[in-house]
Amino acid sequence: MNATFVYAADPLPSWNDTAPKKALVAFVEKVTKPGSPDFVPVAERIATFDNDGTLWAEQPMYFQLLFALDRVKALASQHPEWKGEEPFSSLLRGDVKATLAGGEPAITRIVMATHAEMTTEEFHTIVSAWIDTARHPVTKRLYTEMVYQPMLELLAYLRANSFKTFIVSGGGIDFMRPWTEKVYGIPPEQVIGSTIKTKFEIRDGVPVLVRLPELDFIDDKQGKPIGIQQHIGRRPIAVFGNSDGDLEMFQWTTAGAGPRLAVIVHHTDAEREWAYDRDSSIGRLDKGLDEATSKGWTVVSMKNDWHTIFPASK
Amino acid sequence: MNATFVYAADPLPSWNDTAPKKALVAFVEKVTKPGSPDFVPVAERIATFDNDGTLWAEQPMYFQLLFALDRVKALASQHPEWKGEEPFSSLLRGDVKATLAGGEPAITRIVMATHAEMTTEEFHTIVSAWIDTARHPVTKRLYTEMVYQPMLELLAYLRANSFKTFIVSGGGIDFMRPWTEKVYGIPPEQVIGSTIKTKFEIRDGVPVLVRLPELDFIDDKQGKPIGIQQHIGRRPIAVFGNSDGDLEMFQWTTAGAGPRLAVIVHHTDAEREWAYDRDSSIGRLDKGLDEATSKGWTVVSMKNDWHTIFPASK
Repeated sequence: MNATFVYAADPLPSWNDTAPKKALVAFVEKVTKPGSPDFVPVAERIATFDNDGTLWAEQPMYFQLLFALDRVKALASQHPEWKGEEPFSSLLRGDVKATLAGGEPAITRIVMATHAEMTTEEFHTIVSAWIDTARHPVTKRLYTEMVYQPMLELLAYLRANSFKTFIVSGGGIDFMRPWTEKVYGIPPEQVIGSTIKTKFEIRDGVPVLVRLPELDFIDDKQGKPIGIQQHIGRRPIAVFGNSDGDLEMFQWTTAGAGPRLAVIVHHTDAEREWAYDRDSSIGRLDKGLDEATSKGWTVVSMKNDWHTIFPASK
Repeated sequence: MNATFVYAADPLPSWNDTAPKKALVAFVEKVTKPGSPDFVPVAERIATFDNDGTLWAEQPMYFQLLFALDRVKALASQHPEWKGEEPFSSLLRGDVKATLAGGEPAITRIVMATHAEMTTEEFHTIVSAWIDTARHPVTKRLYTEMVYQPMLELLAYLRANSFKTFIVSGGGIDFMRPWTEKVYGIPPEQVIGSTIKTKFEIRDGVPVLVRLPELDFIDDKQGKPIGIQQHIGRRPIAVFGNSDGDLEMFQWTTAGAGPRLAVIVHHTDAEREWAYDRDSSIGRLDKGLDEATSKGWTVVSMKNDWHTIFPASK
């Protein structure tokens, strides 16, 4: 009688059997194997993930900006003055290009007009309603169906191996938290992002936190290791990103002693998703690609390494 | 044959069998009982704890301030100018009263001189060495033995019932994190506290985070609900504190819908610990006592409700 082998079901079925999948599995196996020189205790199994372009798509523009544009339209009747004020007037005429021509200051005005001057609970309700119903302008899918199936599997695989998974995103922390638990299995206390200031107030005997139109912290570039220190207080052992905004988080993570895993999602699939890197204004990946080569980080080609991009639509 | 009853071992042996213990157990039982109208899903079982005066002692002054005073002495030889500068000169002469007479500005100067201008890893090493060896000026115990045994049991009891336990303290986040996991079982990512700003830098090819002598966030009073929103992103269902600095955290927690537990540790035991409340400059409990009465919060008398105060010395 021949020996019988029992294989566990593949935890990463949407990944092709190419080098990145092998690197992921090899890393997880070595850090979880008791007695291995690379063994990492459970408490230190911290993995951080960028969100835009890493866990969900970010084209034709960041989804949070599409949310803000939708909010401007929804709020326009309460703000008749917007008809004569940029960037609002361009936006209300449907000219997104002219809206964004004002650059950072225009975007900041839009964000503050749509994300502040309300309580944290009111904002939570607004985001929840939007994410449940709004649809992507190109694919017409729900935004929660614009997430990457291979990354959902990877998150689950890491957690099954006792990793704690965190989001470390330039996006707004309170824009992500209403839905990350349901969509990614990542609870609000494991979401790190950009913040505006808030103020504690008692309104008619009820304590509330009011969102102020004032930036508090930008969780991007150098802000990512700072946000990690602030929220987690220890260095991740695995890091996942897709753009130069993640570079400092990669440097910080991989500089730790012991085994480290650094994985870049490279947008190479113009047919099934989008193809962009060094010249893109959204999600630019330039220095990161160079450093990945020089430092041996794993680069995932969405086209070659992912069997499936998006989950089945519900 | 009579029925045989099997009792589980008491999870709170250092608590007397008085009203507070009964309130704690009744709360935990009702929120964890499937089918109960008060059942709370695991993900929402968030409990927040103040640290100074709630999990460990805070007399004759906050332990972090004793750390800072020790650091001034240790650093004095590198700062000959301190001999002619207050508050350092008073401190180096051993006159703690004159040192603190300068109030907040004097304390801020001492904290900045001892907590900043180094990397986060250097600060971690300094705190770890101090907490392992420094001793309390009155009891001569290690500071990690100045924690409250009943609260250690309570933390473990809550976690055994799938609560996530967080510290929400006015103390420095990076002063607590090096030891909270070992002492309280609370990992660094569940510690919220006051912060100074940090800066990301590459030094000789190695990324570091440098602690700057600039306040970032004070996690006290109104700052506590703000810190909770920032780090946890959902409202606790149970809250533990001991001073008016915790009042807004209590208000915020208890204003949520559904079952809530609010417990104040009242320092009533001059023999085994310290007795202080409305008139104390450290850990003043005045408005909190009034509001506990009017709102029915649980007040623990250390003298009457705790069988043991400190753990056995090792």
